[in-house]
Amino acid sequence: MAGSELTNIKAPRVKAAKRLAKRAFRDRDRAFLAEGPQAVREALALPEVTVELFTTAEAAARHPEIVSAARAAGVPVHPASGEVMAELAQTVTPQGLLAVCRFVHVPLAEAVTADARLVAVLAHVRDPGNAGTVLRTADAAGADAVVFTDASVDPYNGKCVRASAGSLFHLPVVTGVPVAGTVAHLRESGLRVLAADGAGKHTLDDVDLAGPTAWIFGNEAWGLPEEVLALADEVVRVPIYGRAESLNLATAAAVCLYASARSRRAE
Amino acid sequence: MAGSELTNIKAPRVKAAKRLAKRAFRDRDRAFLAEGPQAVREALALPEVTVELFTTAEAAARHPEIVSAARAAGVPVHPASGEVMAELAQTVTPQGLLAVCRFVHVPLAEAVTADARLVAVLAHVRDPGNAGTVLRTADAAGADAVVFTDASVDPYNGKCVRASAGSLFHLPVVTGVPVAGTVAHLRESGLRVLAADGAGKHTLDDVDLAGPTAWIFGNEAWGLPEEVLALADEVVRVPIYGRAESLNLATAAAVCLYASARSRRAE
Repeated sequence: MAGSELTNIKAPRVKAAKRLAKRAFRDRDRAFLAEGPQAVREALALPEVTVELFTTAEAAARHPEIVSAARAAGVPVHPASGEVMAELAQTVTPQGLLAVCRFVHVPLAEAVTADARLVAVLAHVRDPGNAGTVLRTADAAGADAVVFTDASVDPYNGKCVRASAGSLFHLPVVTGVPVAGTVAHLRESGLRVLAADGAGKHTLDDVDLAGPTAWIFGNEAWGLPEEVLALADEVVRVPIYGRAESLNLATAAAVCLYASARSRRAE
Repeated sequence: MAGSELTNIKAPRVKAAKRLAKRAFRDRDRAFLAEGPQAVREALALPEVTVELFTTAEAAARHPEIVSAARAAGVPVHPASGEVMAELAQTVTPQGLLAVCRFVHVPLAEAVTADARLVAVLAHVRDPGNAGTVLRTADAAGADAVVFTDASVDPYNGKCVRASAGSLFHLPVVTGVPVAGTVAHLRESGLRVLAADGAGKHTLDDVDLAGPTAWIFGNEAWGLPEEVLALADEVVRVPIYGRAESLNLATAAAVCLYASARSRRAE
Protein backbone atom coordinates (compact mmCIF):
# COMPACT_ATOMS: atom_id res chain seq x y z
CA MET A 1 0.00 0.00 0.00
CA ALA A 2 1.03 3.59 -0.53
CA GLY A 3 1.88 5.29 2.74
CA SER A 4 0.70 4.64 6.26
CA GLU A 5 -2.92 4.23 7.33
CA LEU A 6 -5.06 7.35 7.37
CA THR A 7 -6.55 7.59 10.85
CA ASN A 8 -7.39 11.29 11.08
CA ILE A 9 -10.82 12.19 9.73
CA LYS A 10 -9.59 15.75 9.38
CA ALA A 11 -6.68 14.89 7.10
CA PRO A 12 -6.85 17.10 3.95
CA ARG A 13 -7.16 14.06 1.67
CA VAL A 14 -10.13 12.74 3.68
CA LYS A 15 -11.82 16.12 3.80
CA ALA A 16 -11.34 16.64 0.05
CA ALA A 17 -12.98 13.27 -0.70
CA LYS A 18 -15.80 13.72 1.80
CA ARG A 19 -16.81 17.02 0.21
CA LEU A 20 -17.79 15.07 -2.91
CA ALA A 21 -20.94 13.99 -1.09
CA LYS A 22 -22.17 17.47 -2.06
CA ARG A 23 -23.13 18.26 -5.62
CA ALA A 24 -21.45 21.69 -5.70
CA PHE A 25 -18.07 20.11 -4.92
CA ARG A 26 -18.66 17.27 -7.38
CA ASP A 27 -19.38 19.76 -10.12
CA ARG A 28 -16.33 21.84 -9.21
CA ASP A 29 -13.94 18.86 -9.10
CA ARG A 30 -15.76 16.91 -11.84
CA ALA A 31 -15.44 13.89 -9.55
CA PHE A 32 -17.67 11.67 -7.42
CA LEU A 33 -17.55 8.80 -4.93
CA ALA A 34 -18.10 5.13 -5.75
CA GLU A 35 -18.55 2.84 -2.75
CA GLY A 36 -18.20 -0.89 -2.31
CA PRO A 37 -16.35 -3.65 -4.17
CA GLN A 38 -18.74 -3.89 -7.13
CA ALA A 39 -18.67 -0.18 -8.01
CA VAL A 40 -14.92 0.10 -7.46
CA ARG A 41 -14.26 -2.94 -9.66
CA GLU A 42 -16.35 -1.45 -12.48
CA ALA A 43 -14.66 1.96 -12.12
CA LEU A 44 -11.22 0.36 -12.35
CA ALA A 45 -12.27 -1.52 -15.47
CA LEU A 46 -12.49 1.83 -17.27
CA PRO A 47 -9.33 3.71 -18.22
CA GLU A 48 -8.60 7.04 -16.53
CA VAL A 49 -11.70 7.03 -14.33
CA THR A 50 -10.42 6.19 -10.85
CA VAL A 51 -8.50 9.03 -9.19
CA GLU A 52 -7.70 7.34 -5.89
CA LEU A 53 -8.85 4.43 -3.77
CA PHE A 54 -9.44 4.33 -0.01
CA THR A 55 -9.49 0.89 1.59
CA THR A 56 -9.56 -0.55 5.09
CA ALA A 57 -7.05 -3.30 5.89
CA GLU A 58 -9.92 -5.76 6.18
CA ALA A 59 -11.38 -4.90 2.74
CA ALA A 60 -7.93 -5.00 1.15
CA ALA A 61 -7.47 -8.51 2.55
CA ARG A 62 -10.91 -9.57 1.33
CA HIS A 63 -10.49 -8.10 -2.18
CA PRO A 64 -6.76 -8.30 -3.02
CA GLU A 65 -7.55 -8.36 -6.77
CA ILE A 66 -9.15 -4.91 -6.53
CA VAL A 67 -6.11 -3.44 -4.78
CA SER A 68 -3.83 -5.08 -7.37
CA ALA A 69 -5.91 -3.73 -10.24
CA ALA A 70 -5.71 -0.23 -8.77
CA ARG A 71 -1.93 -0.48 -8.35
CA ALA A 72 -1.52 -1.88 -11.87
CA ALA A 73 -3.46 1.09 -13.21
CA GLY A 74 -1.29 3.54 -11.26
CA VAL A 75 -4.18 4.54 -9.00
CA PRO A 76 -2.97 5.68 -5.55
CA VAL A 77 -4.27 3.34 -2.84
CA HIS A 78 -4.76 4.90 0.60
CA PRO A 79 -5.06 2.56 3.57
CA ALA A 80 -7.71 4.00 5.89
CA SER A 81 -8.95 3.23 9.38
CA GLY A 82 -12.49 2.09 9.97
CA GLU A 83 -13.23 5.51 11.42
CA VAL A 84 -12.00 7.32 8.30
CA MET A 85 -14.01 4.95 6.09
CA ALA A 86 -17.14 5.60 8.16
CA GLU A 87 -16.52 9.33 7.70
CA LEU A 88 -16.24 8.98 3.92
CA ALA A 89 -18.89 6.33 3.25
CA GLN A 90 -22.54 7.26 2.88
CA THR A 91 -23.82 3.83 3.90
CA VAL A 92 -24.58 2.62 7.40
CA THR A 93 -22.35 -0.43 7.03
CA PRO A 94 -19.49 0.70 4.78
CA GLN A 95 -17.89 -2.08 2.79
CA GLY A 96 -14.37 -0.72 3.26
CA LEU A 97 -13.66 0.30 -0.33
CA LEU A 98 -14.29 3.73 -1.75
CA ALA A 99 -12.98 5.32 -4.93
CA VAL A 100 -12.85 8.91 -6.04
CA CYS A 101 -13.82 8.80 -9.72
CA ARG A 102 -13.76 11.28 -12.57
CA PHE A 103 -17.09 12.10 -14.20
CA VAL A 104 -17.98 9.48 -16.81
CA HIS A 105 -20.83 11.14 -18.72
CA VAL A 106 -20.51 11.90 -22.41
CA PRO A 107 -22.16 14.42 -24.77
CA LEU A 108 -25.59 13.47 -26.11
CA ALA A 109 -24.33 13.31 -29.70
CA GLU A 110 -21.74 10.75 -28.68
CA ALA A 111 -24.11 8.63 -26.55
CA VAL A 112 -26.96 8.50 -29.04
CA THR A 113 -26.12 7.90 -32.69
CA ALA A 114 -28.07 6.51 -35.63
CA ASP A 115 -27.16 3.01 -34.39
CA ALA A 116 -29.11 3.40 -31.14
CA ARG A 117 -32.02 1.03 -30.69
CA LEU A 118 -33.11 1.65 -27.10
CA VAL A 119 -32.58 4.78 -24.99
CA ALA A 120 -33.97 5.73 -21.56
CA VAL A 121 -34.52 9.40 -20.71
CA LEU A 122 -35.06 10.47 -17.09
CA ALA A 123 -37.00 13.73 -17.10
CA HIS A 124 -37.98 15.12 -13.69
CA VAL A 125 -36.88 12.00 -11.81
CA ARG A 126 -36.01 13.38 -8.38
CA ASP A 127 -35.36 10.35 -6.18
CA PRO A 128 -31.74 9.23 -6.61
CA GLY A 129 -32.58 5.63 -5.63
CA ASN A 130 -35.21 5.45 -8.36
CA ALA A 131 -32.88 7.04 -10.90
CA GLY A 132 -30.11 4.57 -10.12
CA THR A 133 -32.54 1.65 -10.34
CA VAL A 134 -33.77 2.81 -13.76
CA LEU A 135 -30.14 3.12 -14.91
CA ARG A 136 -29.45 -0.45 -13.74
CA THR A 137 -32.61 -1.72 -15.43
CA ALA A 138 -31.83 0.11 -18.69
CA ASP A 139 -28.39 -1.51 -18.66
CA ALA A 140 -29.94 -4.95 -18.05
CA ALA A 141 -32.45 -4.39 -20.86
CA GLY A 142 -29.59 -3.64 -23.24
CA ALA A 143 -30.20 0.09 -23.66
CA ASP A 144 -27.63 1.99 -25.69
CA ALA A 145 -27.66 5.07 -23.43
CA VAL A 146 -29.38 6.72 -20.47
CA VAL A 147 -30.04 10.46 -20.48
CA PHE A 148 -30.57 12.46 -17.26
CA THR A 149 -32.18 15.75 -18.31
CA ASP A 150 -31.46 18.99 -16.46
CA ALA A 151 -34.63 18.63 -14.37
CA SER A 152 -33.57 15.24 -13.02
CA VAL A 153 -31.41 14.22 -10.09
CA ASP A 154 -27.61 14.20 -10.39
CA PRO A 155 -26.44 10.75 -11.60
CA TYR A 156 -23.37 11.14 -9.36
CA ASN A 157 -25.48 11.44 -6.20
CA GLY A 158 -24.24 8.69 -3.85
CA LYS A 159 -27.61 6.96 -3.61
CA CYS A 160 -27.96 6.94 -7.39
CA VAL A 161 -24.46 5.50 -7.86
CA ARG A 162 -25.20 2.76 -5.32
CA ALA A 163 -28.64 1.91 -6.75
CA SER A 164 -27.13 1.66 -10.23
CA ALA A 165 -25.02 -1.27 -8.93
CA GLY A 166 -22.17 -0.51 -11.33
CA SER A 167 -24.32 0.32 -14.36
CA LEU A 168 -23.16 3.96 -14.27
CA PHE A 169 -19.86 2.56 -15.58
CA HIS A 170 -21.43 0.22 -18.14
CA LEU A 171 -23.19 2.31 -20.73
CA PRO A 172 -23.04 5.89 -22.00
CA VAL A 173 -24.73 8.28 -19.59
CA VAL A 174 -25.63 11.87 -20.48
CA THR A 175 -26.51 14.49 -17.89
CA GLY A 176 -27.72 18.09 -17.63
CA VAL A 177 -29.32 18.39 -21.06
CA PRO A 178 -32.69 20.08 -21.70
CA VAL A 179 -35.51 17.69 -22.53
CA ALA A 180 -36.59 19.45 -25.75
CA GLY A 181 -33.12 19.30 -27.28
CA THR A 182 -32.82 15.68 -26.20
CA VAL A 183 -36.06 14.70 -27.92
CA ALA A 184 -35.03 16.54 -31.11
CA HIS A 185 -31.73 14.67 -31.16
CA LEU A 186 -33.38 11.30 -30.46
CA ARG A 187 -35.77 11.83 -33.35
CA GLU A 188 -32.99 12.91 -35.71
CA SER A 189 -31.18 9.73 -34.71
CA GLY A 190 -34.14 7.69 -35.95
CA LEU A 191 -35.72 6.79 -32.61
CA ARG A 192 -39.44 6.83 -31.93
CA VAL A 193 -39.99 8.84 -28.75
CA LEU A 194 -42.46 7.33 -26.26
CA ALA A 195 -43.43 9.10 -23.04
CA ALA A 196 -44.39 6.73 -20.22
CA ASP A 197 -47.28 8.26 -18.33
CA GLY A 198 -50.37 7.02 -16.54
CA ALA A 199 -52.38 9.44 -18.67
CA GLY A 200 -51.35 7.73 -21.92
CA LYS A 201 -54.01 7.07 -24.54
CA HIS A 202 -52.26 3.91 -25.67
CA THR A 203 -51.18 1.05 -23.45
CA LEU A 204 -48.01 -0.94 -23.72
CA ASP A 205 -50.11 -3.78 -25.16
CA ASP A 206 -51.10 -1.82 -28.24
CA VAL A 207 -47.96 0.00 -29.32
CA ASP A 208 -45.48 -1.49 -31.73
CA LEU A 209 -42.13 -1.63 -29.99
CA ALA A 210 -40.13 -3.34 -32.70
CA GLY A 211 -38.27 -0.29 -34.05
CA PRO A 212 -35.66 1.91 -32.35
CA THR A 213 -37.32 3.42 -29.29
CA ALA A 214 -36.56 6.06 -26.68
CA TRP A 215 -38.58 6.05 -23.45
CA ILE A 216 -39.09 9.20 -21.38
CA PHE A 217 -39.81 8.67 -17.68
CA GLY A 218 -41.17 11.39 -15.42
CA ASN A 219 -41.57 12.33 -11.82
CA GLU A 220 -42.38 9.77 -9.10
CA ALA A 221 -45.44 11.67 -7.91
CA TRP A 222 -46.82 13.62 -10.83
CA GLY A 223 -45.48 11.97 -13.99
CA LEU A 224 -44.55 14.17 -16.94
CA PRO A 225 -45.57 17.79 -17.54
CA GLU A 226 -47.78 18.66 -20.52
CA GLU A 227 -44.94 20.21 -22.48
CA VAL A 228 -42.93 16.99 -22.32
CA LEU A 229 -45.94 14.82 -23.22
CA ALA A 230 -46.47 17.11 -26.23
CA LEU A 231 -42.91 16.45 -27.42
CA ALA A 232 -43.37 12.67 -27.60
CA ASP A 233 -44.57 10.68 -30.62
CA GLU A 234 -46.88 8.72 -28.32
CA VAL A 235 -47.84 8.81 -24.67
CA VAL A 236 -48.00 5.24 -23.42
CA ARG A 237 -49.24 3.85 -20.13
CA VAL A 238 -48.47 0.53 -18.52
CA PRO A 239 -51.86 -1.20 -18.31
CA ILE A 240 -53.23 -1.72 -14.79
CA TYR A 241 -55.07 -5.04 -14.77
CA GLY A 242 -55.87 -5.01 -11.04
CA ARG A 243 -56.88 -2.34 -8.57
CA ALA A 244 -53.58 -0.53 -8.00
CA GLU A 245 -53.83 3.15 -8.83
CA SER A 246 -50.44 3.23 -10.48
CA LEU A 247 -47.02 1.62 -10.53
CA ASN A 248 -43.96 3.11 -8.94
CA LEU A 249 -41.60 4.84 -11.32
CA ALA A 250 -38.79 2.28 -11.37
CA THR A 251 -41.32 -0.54 -11.81
CA ALA A 252 -43.08 1.16 -14.72
CA ALA A 253 -39.71 1.86 -16.34
CA ALA A 254 -38.72 -1.80 -15.97
CA VAL A 255 -41.92 -3.01 -17.62
CA CYS A 256 -41.51 -0.54 -20.53
CA LEU A 257 -37.80 -1.14 -21.10
CA TYR A 258 -38.16 -4.92 -21.00
CA ALA A 259 -41.20 -4.82 -23.29
CA SER A 260 -39.01 -2.95 -25.81
CA ALA A 261 -36.07 -5.30 -25.29
CA ARG A 262 -38.23 -8.38 -25.79
CA SER A 263 -39.96 -6.98 -28.90
CA ARG A 264 -36.58 -6.17 -30.34
CA ARG A 265 -35.30 -9.74 -29.74
CA ALA A 266 -38.45 -11.15 -31.29
CA GLU A 267 -37.93 -9.20 -34.55
CA MET B 1 -65.03 14.82 15.81
CA ALA B 2 -65.11 12.50 18.79
CA GLY B 3 -63.66 14.19 21.87
CA SER B 4 -61.08 16.92 22.21
CA GLU B 5 -57.73 17.01 20.47
CA LEU B 6 -55.10 14.57 21.71
CA THR B 7 -52.05 16.65 22.57
CA ASN B 8 -50.23 14.35 25.00
CA ILE B 9 -47.88 11.88 23.34
CA LYS B 10 -48.08 9.80 26.53
CA ALA B 11 -51.85 9.39 26.42
CA PRO B 12 -52.74 5.66 26.68
CA ARG B 13 -54.49 5.70 23.29
CA VAL B 14 -51.42 7.19 21.61
CA LYS B 15 -49.05 4.76 23.32
CA ALA B 16 -51.23 1.79 22.39
CA ALA B 17 -51.19 2.80 18.71
CA LYS B 18 -47.50 3.65 18.64
CA ARG B 19 -46.59 0.20 19.92
CA LEU B 20 -47.95 -1.24 16.66
CA ALA B 21 -44.74 -0.06 15.00
CA LYS B 22 -43.29 -3.23 16.56
CA ARG B 23 -44.12 -6.65 15.18
CA ALA B 24 -44.59 -8.32 18.59
CA PHE B 25 -47.36 -5.86 19.46
CA ARG B 26 -48.92 -6.14 16.00
CA ASP B 27 -49.07 -9.90 16.38
CA ARG B 28 -50.51 -9.64 19.88
CA ASP B 29 -53.21 -7.12 18.91
CA ARG B 30 -53.67 -8.50 15.38
CA ALA B 31 -53.58 -4.87 14.23
CA PHE B 32 -51.27 -2.53 12.30
CA LEU B 33 -50.89 1.10 11.25
CA ALA B 34 -51.86 2.53 7.88
CA GLU B 35 -50.57 6.06 7.18
CA GLY B 36 -51.66 8.72 4.74
CA PRO B 37 -54.88 9.49 2.85
CA GLN B 38 -54.51 6.77 0.21
CA ALA B 39 -53.99 3.89 2.65
CA VAL B 40 -56.70 5.16 5.03
CA ARG B 41 -59.19 5.52 2.18
CA GLU B 42 -58.54 1.95 1.04
CA ALA B 43 -58.81 0.62 4.60
CA LEU B 44 -62.15 2.35 5.09
CA ALA B 45 -63.43 0.85 1.84
CA LEU B 46 -63.26 -2.58 3.49
CA PRO B 47 -65.80 -3.57 6.14
CA GLU B 48 -64.60 -4.12 9.72
CA VAL B 49 -60.96 -3.30 9.02
CA THR B 50 -60.43 0.17 10.49
CA VAL B 51 -60.37 0.21 14.30
CA GLU B 52 -59.77 3.92 14.81
CA LEU B 53 -58.55 6.96 12.94
CA PHE B 54 -56.17 9.68 14.10
CA THR B 55 -56.24 12.94 12.19
CA THR B 56 -54.77 16.41 12.53
CA ALA B 57 -57.15 19.33 12.09
CA GLU B 58 -55.33 20.25 8.90
CA ALA B 59 -55.69 16.77 7.36
CA ALA B 60 -59.35 16.57 8.38
CA ALA B 61 -59.96 19.88 6.57
CA ARG B 62 -58.08 18.65 3.51
CA HIS B 63 -59.83 15.25 3.36
CA PRO B 64 -63.34 15.77 4.77
CA GLU B 65 -64.63 12.77 2.76
CA ILE B 66 -62.28 10.44 4.64
CA VAL B 67 -63.45 11.70 8.02
CA SER B 68 -67.08 11.38 6.90
CA ALA B 69 -66.51 7.83 5.64
CA ALA B 70 -64.95 6.88 8.98
CA ARG B 71 -67.87 8.36 10.92
CA ALA B 72 -70.41 6.68 8.63
CA ALA B 73 -68.71 3.36 9.29
CA GLY B 74 -68.80 3.91 13.05
CA VAL B 75 -65.01 4.24 13.26
CA PRO B 76 -63.89 6.45 16.16
CA VAL B 77 -62.10 9.56 14.86
CA HIS B 78 -59.49 11.04 17.20
CA PRO B 79 -58.36 14.61 16.54
CA ALA B 80 -54.63 14.74 17.22
CA SER B 81 -52.06 17.51 17.47
CA GLY B 82 -49.17 17.67 15.02
CA GLU B 83 -46.89 16.50 17.82
CA VAL B 84 -49.01 13.40 18.50
CA MET B 85 -49.15 12.63 14.77
CA ALA B 86 -45.37 12.95 14.51
CA GLU B 87 -45.09 10.52 17.42
CA LEU B 88 -47.35 7.97 15.75
CA ALA B 89 -46.26 8.35 12.13
CA GLN B 90 -43.23 6.53 10.79
CA THR B 91 -42.60 9.00 7.99
CA VAL B 92 -40.49 12.14 8.13
CA THR B 93 -43.33 14.31 6.86
CA PRO B 94 -46.52 12.73 8.23
CA GLN B 95 -49.61 13.34 6.14
CA GLY B 96 -51.85 13.85 9.15
CA LEU B 97 -54.01 10.73 8.78
CA LEU B 98 -53.28 7.41 10.45
CA ALA B 99 -55.54 4.43 10.97
CA VAL B 100 -55.23 1.46 13.29
CA CYS B 101 -56.39 -1.49 11.17
CA ARG B 102 -57.21 -5.10 11.87
CA PHE B 103 -55.11 -7.73 10.10
CA VAL B 104 -56.46 -8.34 6.59
CA HIS B 105 -54.66 -11.54 5.59
CA VAL B 106 -56.60 -14.68 4.77
CA PRO B 107 -55.80 -18.41 4.82
CA LEU B 108 -53.96 -19.78 1.79
CA ALA B 109 -56.87 -22.04 0.83
CA GLU B 110 -59.16 -19.03 0.66
CA ALA B 111 -56.70 -16.79 -1.25
CA VAL B 112 -55.70 -19.35 -3.86
CA THR B 113 -58.42 -21.50 -5.39
CA ALA B 114 -58.73 -23.39 -8.66
CA ASP B 115 -59.81 -20.10 -10.30
CA ALA B 116 -56.44 -18.44 -9.65
CA ARG B 117 -54.49 -17.44 -12.74
CA LEU B 118 -51.58 -15.41 -11.34
CA VAL B 119 -50.08 -15.59 -7.86
CA ALA B 120 -46.92 -13.97 -6.43
CA VAL B 121 -45.03 -15.69 -3.62
CA LEU B 122 -42.44 -13.79 -1.57
CA ALA B 123 -39.96 -16.29 -0.14
CA HIS B 124 -37.04 -14.84 1.82
CA VAL B 125 -37.82 -11.24 0.83
CA ARG B 126 -36.38 -9.27 3.74
CA ASP B 127 -36.61 -5.63 2.74
CA PRO B 128 -40.09 -4.28 3.57
CA GLY B 129 -39.88 -1.60 0.85
CA ASN B 130 -39.18 -4.25 -1.78
CA ALA B 131 -41.95 -6.49 -0.45
CA GLY B 132 -44.49 -3.66 -0.56
CA THR B 133 -43.41 -2.71 -4.07
CA VAL B 134 -43.85 -6.32 -5.26
CA LEU B 135 -47.32 -6.38 -3.65
CA ARG B 136 -48.25 -3.16 -5.48
CA THR B 137 -46.90 -4.52 -8.76
CA ALA B 138 -48.71 -7.85 -8.34
CA ASP B 139 -51.93 -5.92 -7.78
CA ALA B 140 -51.31 -3.81 -10.90
CA ALA B 141 -50.56 -6.94 -12.94
CA GLY B 142 -53.91 -8.39 -11.89
CA ALA B 143 -52.61 -11.11 -9.58
CA ASP B 144 -55.22 -13.10 -7.67
CA ALA B 145 -53.19 -13.26 -4.46
CA VAL B 146 -49.82 -12.50 -2.88
CA VAL B 147 -48.26 -14.95 -0.41
CA PHE B 148 -45.62 -13.88 2.16
CA THR B 149 -43.96 -17.11 3.35
CA ASP B 150 -42.72 -17.48 6.93
CA ALA B 151 -39.16 -16.55 5.90
CA SER B 152 -40.25 -13.20 4.46
CA VAL B 153 -40.77 -9.81 6.03
CA ASP B 154 -44.03 -8.98 7.84
CA PRO B 155 -46.54 -7.49 5.35
CA TYR B 156 -47.78 -5.22 8.15
CA ASN B 157 -44.37 -3.60 8.61
CA GLY B 158 -44.92 0.16 8.18
CA LYS B 159 -42.52 0.46 5.24
CA CYS B 160 -44.18 -2.44 3.46
CA VAL B 161 -47.66 -0.99 4.00
CA ARG B 162 -46.50 2.37 2.62
CA ALA B 163 -44.67 0.88 -0.38
CA SER B 164 -47.77 -1.17 -1.23
CA ALA B 165 -49.61 2.15 -1.81
CA GLY B 166 -52.95 0.66 -0.77
CA SER B 167 -52.54 -2.68 -2.51
CA LEU B 168 -52.44 -4.50 0.84
CA PHE B 169 -56.18 -3.74 0.94
CA HIS B 170 -56.87 -4.69 -2.68
CA LEU B 171 -56.20 -8.37 -3.09
CA PRO B 172 -55.99 -11.44 -0.86
CA VAL B 173 -52.71 -11.52 1.06
CA VAL B 174 -51.46 -14.60 2.92
CA THR B 175 -48.70 -14.49 5.51
CA GLY B 176 -46.62 -16.79 7.70
CA VAL B 177 -46.98 -19.98 5.65
CA PRO B 178 -44.11 -22.39 4.92
CA VAL B 179 -42.90 -22.33 1.33
CA ALA B 180 -43.20 -26.12 0.76
CA GLY B 181 -46.85 -26.22 1.81
CA THR B 182 -47.52 -23.15 -0.30
CA VAL B 183 -46.04 -24.74 -3.43
CA ALA B 184 -48.02 -27.94 -2.85
CA HIS B 185 -51.24 -25.96 -2.57
CA LEU B 186 -50.46 -23.84 -5.65
CA ARG B 187 -49.85 -26.98 -7.69
CA GLU B 188 -53.03 -28.65 -6.44
CA SER B 189 -54.87 -25.48 -7.48
CA GLY B 190 -53.66 -25.98 -11.03
CA LEU B 191 -50.90 -23.38 -11.14
CA ARG B 192 -47.52 -23.89 -12.74
CA VAL B 193 -44.88 -22.87 -10.20
CA LEU B 194 -42.00 -20.76 -11.55
CA ALA B 195 -39.07 -19.69 -9.39
CA ALA B 196 -37.49 -16.40 -10.49
CA ASP B 197 -33.75 -16.70 -10.02
CA GLY B 198 -30.65 -15.45 -11.81
CA ALA B 199 -29.45 -19.07 -11.91
CA GLY B 200 -32.43 -20.18 -14.01
CA LYS B 201 -31.78 -22.47 -16.98
CA HIS B 202 -34.65 -20.94 -18.92
CA THR B 203 -35.18 -17.27 -19.58
CA LEU B 204 -38.44 -15.40 -19.54
CA ASP B 205 -38.25 -15.34 -23.34
CA ASP B 206 -38.48 -19.11 -23.68
CA VAL B 207 -41.10 -20.14 -21.15
CA ASP B 208 -44.76 -20.39 -22.00
CA LEU B 209 -46.64 -18.09 -19.65
CA ALA B 210 -50.13 -18.54 -21.03
CA GLY B 211 -51.51 -20.89 -18.34
CA PRO B 212 -52.15 -20.22 -14.65
CA THR B 213 -48.81 -19.29 -13.09
CA ALA B 214 -47.36 -18.72 -9.66
CA TRP B 215 -44.04 -16.84 -9.35
CA ILE B 216 -41.72 -17.33 -6.40
CA PHE B 217 -39.37 -14.41 -5.63
CA GLY B 218 -36.37 -14.75 -3.33
CA ASN B 219 -33.93 -12.72 -1.33
CA GLU B 220 -32.59 -9.37 -2.52
CA ALA B 221 -28.95 -10.45 -2.18
CA TRP B 222 -28.80 -14.19 -2.65
CA GLY B 223 -31.96 -15.20 -4.51
CA LEU B 224 -33.63 -18.47 -3.62
CA PRO B 225 -32.12 -21.40 -1.67
CA GLU B 226 -31.62 -24.76 -3.41
CA GLU B 227 -34.53 -26.39 -1.59
CA VAL B 228 -36.95 -23.79 -2.91
CA LEU B 229 -35.56 -23.97 -6.47
CA ALA B 230 -36.06 -27.74 -6.28
CA LEU B 231 -39.74 -27.29 -5.44
CA ALA B 232 -40.49 -25.26 -8.57
CA ASP B 233 -41.62 -26.63 -11.93
CA GLU B 234 -39.08 -24.36 -13.64
CA VAL B 235 -36.39 -21.94 -12.56
CA VAL B 236 -36.62 -18.89 -14.79
CA ARG B 237 -34.29 -15.92 -15.10
CA VAL B 238 -34.99 -12.51 -16.52
CA PRO B 239 -32.59 -12.23 -19.47
CA ILE B 240 -29.82 -9.66 -19.08
CA TYR B 241 -29.22 -8.13 -22.51
CA GLY B 242 -26.63 -5.59 -21.36
CA ARG B 243 -23.80 -5.60 -18.85
CA ALA B 244 -25.70 -5.37 -15.55
CA GLU B 245 -24.91 -8.29 -13.26
CA SER B 246 -28.50 -8.65 -12.15
CA LEU B 247 -31.76 -6.78 -11.62
CA ASN B 248 -33.01 -5.65 -8.27
CA LEU B 249 -35.69 -7.84 -6.74
CA ALA B 250 -38.69 -5.56 -7.25
CA THR B 251 -37.64 -4.87 -10.85
CA ALA B 252 -37.23 -8.56 -11.68
CA ALA B 253 -40.62 -9.29 -10.11
CA ALA B 254 -42.23 -6.53 -12.19
CA VAL B 255 -40.81 -7.90 -15.42
CA CYS B 256 -41.96 -11.47 -14.58
CA LEU B 257 -45.44 -10.53 -13.36
CA TYR B 258 -46.12 -8.27 -16.33
CA ALA B 259 -44.81 -10.87 -18.76
CA SER B 260 -47.38 -13.28 -17.29
CA ALA B 261 -50.14 -10.69 -17.32
CA ARG B 262 -49.49 -9.80 -20.95
CA SER B 263 -49.31 -13.44 -22.09
CA ARG B 264 -52.59 -14.10 -20.35
CA ARG B 265 -54.28 -11.16 -22.11
CA ALA B 266 -52.90 -12.32 -25.44
CA GLU B 267 -54.47 -15.79 -25.06
